Amino acid sequence: MNTRDRLLLLLKNNEGSWISGEAIGKKLDISRNAVSKHVKNLRLHGYDIVSAPHKGYRLSAGSDVVSPDEIRDGLLTDVMGKKEIVWFKETGSTNIEAKRLADGGAEEGTLVIADNQLSGRGRLGRTWFSSQGQGIFLSIVLRPRLAPMKAARITLMTAVAVAETLISQTGILPTIKWPNDILVNQKKVAGILTELSADMDVVNHVIVGMGLNVNTDVIDFPREIRPLATSIHAETGKIWSRRKLIQAFLKNFEQYYRTMLEGDFEGVMKQWKALSGIIGKEVAVSMVNRKVMGMVLDVDGEGFLILKDRDGTLHRILSGDVHL
Amino acid sequence: MNTRDRLLLLLKNNEGSWISGEAIGKKLDISRNAVSKHVKNLRLHGYDIVSAPHKGYRLSAGSDVVSPDEIRDGLLTDVMGKKEIVWFKETGSTNIEAKRLADGGAEEGTLVIADNQLSGRGRLGRTWFSSQGQGIFLSIVLRPRLAPMKAARITLMTAVAVAETLISQTGILPTIKWPNDILVNQKKVAGILTELSADMDVVNHVIVGMGLNVNTDVIDFPREIRPLATSIHAETGKIWSRRKLIQAFLKNFEQYYRTMLEGDFEGVMKQWKALSGIIGKEVAVSMVNRKVMGMVLDVDGEGFLILKDRDGTLHRILSGDVHL
Repeated sequence: MNTRDRLLLLLKNNEGSWISGEAIGKKLDISRNAVSKHVKNLRLHGYDIVSAPHKGYRLSAGSDVVSPDEIRDGLLTDVMGKKEIVWFKETGSTNIEAKRLADGGAEEGTLVIADNQLSGRGRLGRTWFSSQGQGIFLSIVLRPRLAPMKAARITLMTAVAVAETLISQTGILPTIKWPNDILVNQKKVAGILTELSADMDVVNHVIVGMGLNVNTDVIDFPREIRPLATSIHAETGKIWSRRKLIQAFLKNFEQYYRTMLEGDFEGVMKQWKALSGIIGKEVAVSMVNRKVMGMVLDVDGEGFLILKDRDGTLHRILSGDVHL
Repeated sequence: MNTRDRLLLLLKNNEGSWISGEAIGKKLDISRNAVSKHVKNLRLHGYDIVSAPHKGYRLSAGSDVVSPDEIRDGLLTDVMGKKEIVWFKETGSTNIEAKRLADGGAEEGTLVIADNQLSGRGRLGRTWFSSQGQGIFLSIVLRPRLAPMKAARITLMTAVAVAETLISQTGILPTIKWPNDILVNQKKVAGILTELSADMDVVNHVIVGMGLNVNTDVIDFPREIRPLATSIHAETGKIWSRRKLIQAFLKNFEQYYRTMLEGDFEGVMKQWKALSGIIGKEVAVSMVNRKVMGMVLDVDGEGFLILKDRDGTLHRILSGDVHL
């Protein structure tokens, strides 16, 4: 264990209490200058360490750090998060960083994670609000042996993994909103952005990006999205460990990803449909240049919404905004 | 017209003949040093300008330059090649350069072209042989409003455009080999590599790369591909203007691309099938981990080969190598 990790352990063993720079220096056999240097480095990696004259240092109780080390510690996956993990205190978009890594040859399971996204994106170039340290912003590099036309399955399967994680970890009951949002009480708690790089007959890589509002206070959402957005905290009144949610999500994600690749996509779609509650509903779908109203008959394995309008005409829609 | 272009015009008007540095300097009212500098610049752009003591400069007769200026001069398209044209004397792969431009926001119709590709690629990461100045190596940036699962149509449509260009410009009779090669007398004369960047429901950009062996001598092909490769020159015994072929190809390409986007893909497929000669043939298709033999019933609008094996089972194949 290196000095930094030994320092971190010491702080964790005294979580919430003060420990003087002198005492730390003695225990680790380093100078007070070196202590100060390592504390700075830990802060850069997201640890909330307070310092005060005559008191020393204190790791804030319940410090919820999503650094590579913290994510790896107790992660029960085989691939996802088991390769490179790249962490940013702040970045433009984790998907863009992941794409850059994938273009450079990054392996399946490579994880990019940020405490804050400066220009988080949603579908169709829309923005995604990110609040420093309160949400989960991550992207995963995948290299599935999959025909490009089947890549939409990854969005569907990821939505199921997010929803299952929320149910099992927090007890809230989410619904999936076609095609790529997760709602609680009709408000958006999570979004998925899947991006594909492919030759005509084979996928090069897929980037799955996921944004999840964890401990965000409702008051911190920009006023214009407040009626539309929520967080796990807002729904439950509790503070949640992002680290544990990430680990649980990665585990679920890996499991559904495998199930999908092994060919049992019908099973995944069954769960998707149960969680979406959209089948059989009357909806309006706004598309780029038109609007269709009707009843949702199905969502097929390619991610298309199958809608029957009042004239009985069937519509197969790949992209649009659904309103109940 | 700037000095460089005036010098080029002067050399073109005396194509194949010597003109002294002094005479050029006088005509353009520049120093002999400046003449030498502009000649160097033109050479960098691919012009074959010979210089000799006491004789001066001579633009080689039939100089076949594919610089941006030369391609633009007489180009009858509206979009393709009408935006930025980036020319390389040598580059790794025009598709990679085009992808970089597209990621940076390059417009539809942006053209990347190289005199030589150092690591030209084919499908499935295979290499594509490139011979300096003898072939056409180009990539086009497209931004179609197309569902990602329809992007394979672009490969099919490009194959038709290449084949039509060969027929109308050189009189040779090519066949299309599913999915992305153009053959003459069973040997490969051109290949297409289409690459897709997409969200789940909308294409960000498509890069269409095309490699065409124009004036390559058979002897210049590496020994191992000699039985499999040919050039227009090898088939006709003539030297062809790459510039004119590029212009004709861009024109055909633009026309088929439009037809496809406007929805008449059946018309394009009709031509594809006529040019492929694969329908009704007995073939063996080698895939990554298996081989199927049978009769080709169809190639559908998503680019799948529909094969019926001896047991009457239908196979829908997206990717593989076909042998007659």
